[in-house]
Amino acid sequence: MGEELEKLSTHLDNIRDLLYSDLRQLIEQPSVSARNEGIRECAELVKNMLEREGFDVKVYDADRPVIVASITSSDDRPTILMYNHYDVQPPEPLEEWNSDPFKLVERDGFLFGRGVADNKGDIAARLTAVRLLRHTYGELPVSLKWIIEGEEEVGSPNLGAFIKEHKDELNADACLWEAGDISDEGVPNLYLGVKGLLYVEISARTSSGDRHSMYAPVIPNPAWQLVQALNTLRGSDGRVKIKEFYRDVRRPSKKEAKLIRSIRLDANKLRQSLSVNRLTEKNRVKLVEKLIMSPTCNIAGLVSGYTGPGAKTIVPSTASVKIDFRLVPDQRPEKILTLLKRHLRRFGDFEVRVYAMESPARSNPDAAIVKAAEETAREVYGVSPNTWPSVPGTGPMSHLIQLGIPSAMLNCISHPGSNFHAPNENIAAKDLERSVIHLAMLMKRFAEKIGR
Amino acid sequence: MGEELEKLSTHLDNIRDLLYSDLRQLIEQPSVSARNEGIRECAELVKNMLEREGFDVKVYDADRPVIVASITSSDDRPTILMYNHYDVQPPEPLEEWNSDPFKLVERDGFLFGRGVADNKGDIAARLTAVRLLRHTYGELPVSLKWIIEGEEEVGSPNLGAFIKEHKDELNADACLWEAGDISDEGVPNLYLGVKGLLYVEISARTSSGDRHSMYAPVIPNPAWQLVQALNTLRGSDGRVKIKEFYRDVRRPSKKEAKLIRSIRLDANKLRQSLSVNRLTEKNRVKLVEKLIMSPTCNIAGLVSGYTGPGAKTIVPSTASVKIDFRLVPDQRPEKILTLLKRHLRRFGDFEVRVYAMESPARSNPDAAIVKAAEETAREVYGVSPNTWPSVPGTGPMSHLIQLGIPSAMLNCISHPGSNFHAPNENIAAKDLERSVIHLAMLMKRFAEKIGR
Repeated sequence: MGEELEKLSTHLDNIRDLLYSDLRQLIEQPSVSARNEGIRECAELVKNMLEREGFDVKVYDADRPVIVASITSSDDRPTILMYNHYDVQPPEPLEEWNSDPFKLVERDGFLFGRGVADNKGDIAARLTAVRLLRHTYGELPVSLKWIIEGEEEVGSPNLGAFIKEHKDELNADACLWEAGDISDEGVPNLYLGVKGLLYVEISARTSSGDRHSMYAPVIPNPAWQLVQALNTLRGSDGRVKIKEFYRDVRRPSKKEAKLIRSIRLDANKLRQSLSVNRLTEKNRVKLVEKLIMSPTCNIAGLVSGYTGPGAKTIVPSTASVKIDFRLVPDQRPEKILTLLKRHLRRFGDFEVRVYAMESPARSNPDAAIVKAAEETAREVYGVSPNTWPSVPGTGPMSHLIQLGIPSAMLNCISHPGSNFHAPNENIAAKDLERSVIHLAMLMKRFAEKIGR
Repeated sequence: MGEELEKLSTHLDNIRDLLYSDLRQLIEQPSVSARNEGIRECAELVKNMLEREGFDVKVYDADRPVIVASITSSDDRPTILMYNHYDVQPPEPLEEWNSDPFKLVERDGFLFGRGVADNKGDIAARLTAVRLLRHTYGELPVSLKWIIEGEEEVGSPNLGAFIKEHKDELNADACLWEAGDISDEGVPNLYLGVKGLLYVEISARTSSGDRHSMYAPVIPNPAWQLVQALNTLRGSDGRVKIKEFYRDVRRPSKKEAKLIRSIRLDANKLRQSLSVNRLTEKNRVKLVEKLIMSPTCNIAGLVSGYTGPGAKTIVPSTASVKIDFRLVPDQRPEKILTLLKRHLRRFGDFEVRVYAMESPARSNPDAAIVKAAEETAREVYGVSPNTWPSVPGTGPMSHLIQLGIPSAMLNCISHPGSNFHAPNENIAAKDLERSVIHLAMLMKRFAEKIGR
């Protein structure tokens, strides 16, 4: 064990109780953004914890308040911005929980409770890391800014505008986004980017109501129109057939390609954990590349006519499909929407409704914050991390990357069985504690690298 | 007015009350097969009416009894079989009725009540026609058989087997199926056949549950699989692309083609009444031909993944489609099913579930019963009828045609606004009374043509 790691571990022993008491308080304060339950109370709780650790705290009032906190060092130290959210998913179905979702319960080394993985555990770990650094070194190696929103679980509808409006206030040398995770084999996963998203509903209507299907020979069927149009959107190989769809796709850099090749992913384990009958890609490297570098056109929902039990002989009056396009840099959801609409025009009279647009973004793998996280992860976990150029999913991280702030998910709180958004959400106590130490070390290392 | 017509009209005046009192009793006895409500009571009521008119009546016991009645003439007269059903559709939604569905109510010359058009009005008219013939001529010109089932509105699940089992008992020179109708312009519509039906549900499943759509690049999506397979089933012109699908389609005979050309159908009125934005065929003759002579592959229902409000980013685990194939002579539903399964095998692992199979059938337009109906319709209605080689829909008429009994819908009870299966079901009193006279005349004419 390195000297630094040993020192931090020893000091953590002295403040461990605070980590768990913070986490307990956060879990016991419900904060369900979907129904605005406990949101203000939770914001107040987080504010008090931040002030206790010496942060200057502003609470921007809104339906769900945004907290912006900061600790500014006296000298010109580099600044790290942190992003979290204090809201959680609804706990339902309650009957599937083995304990009260709003109590922190430990069983066999695992901590259970709504939000413990996503991402109140992360908030508690970061608060403790700040204290740990001061406790161990007498001061913080960096200036800190922290934005904690209360509506991530309902899609962060206002975050982009907020960041734009407060971009000077939030400016930093790097951003620690929400946490990464630890694989079943104990390998820390770090993520440097997000895919974008364009979520649309495409509908066709041909009459005021369903008609007897004896008229099928002579009246239009919107389900057939939709099926025919859909079939022109995507090939059986998954490739999107909209003209110019791939035009702005940035090829993986040499460094990104190297990272992709080095990622340890057990394809068979992935298949089993998803319980699908097969993966569409067998080669490990191609599997990783597809997962994080391929844009998609995915049917998320499809409905027309009669969908109940048994038979009903009708020509439907409407048909609609929900599609999520996951995008990669430098695709822009606004442009993809334009291309989609232009494409559809050739196949009939479709209505296109937009539910979500989010830009893709990837941070530079050579950024100091990434290097600092990789190096210290190796020391804390005893193994090289997987550095993923992107997650396969989408998040509002692009708003910061677009401002030129290298942003990434670099703390490893959760594990593949953490049950995000599901009953019995949990993290391992050991992972939580290691993440505190990793976080403290990576902040210090980052400051050393920046060398200010 | 012809002499015969005048005589029958005069005699009808004397027995008109019976027509309406029979109809009133039939309407006031609910007989909803879908929930077995009043079925036995209605069978008993019909049996009593039949016996009153001198029929020998057998009631075949079953969940919903089948009534078979007959009047055998002393000499060797030709035999007409009649088919009806004493059950009705459920009356819901009740709040949309302007009067009690189980009361016979007259307003402005129209008779309202559940079953008045489909097809208790027909039963009452036929009972009255029998009495009218006896009253006018002292005897019946034909021997009569009458099968009245109680589960037509739930798809006649046992009729085919019943007819096969009782084919000697039901044997006849011709069959009068349920009634035809009168167009808005006062033209009687006669129908000589039915389309067949193959109703299937095709499903795909790729995992045990829906998955986060970030995995879309590497896991199969059953909705896409289904869309791609569906697209191979049917061209955008509506033509079915299953190999050998059209192989057994019998071309319209010269006589049928001539009938099609002579049918008066207002395409614009049809479009308006269906309130569709357009018909897929503008030419009147082609429109009629498509409607009754083209087999179809119709999507009646389609569902996959998330179909609620808003967005949900998932890869669905299942996708399924309900398809009804309307078939024409000499396609067989069993064979089409085999062709379909063979076709689908090329596109993935689909489950095919069969909900309904019914054979198509058309009677010969030159059959004596058709000629008799056409001639007498001209006399009663003062206009040549439209003789449709087939209805666009499906019914169990094929079971009789396949036995070699010319069968057709030749009485004109309902009109385009009769609201079949819907609230405020109705017929015009005038149409009901004319159908009694037409029926009496066509029976007499039929006997003269057969000349026995």
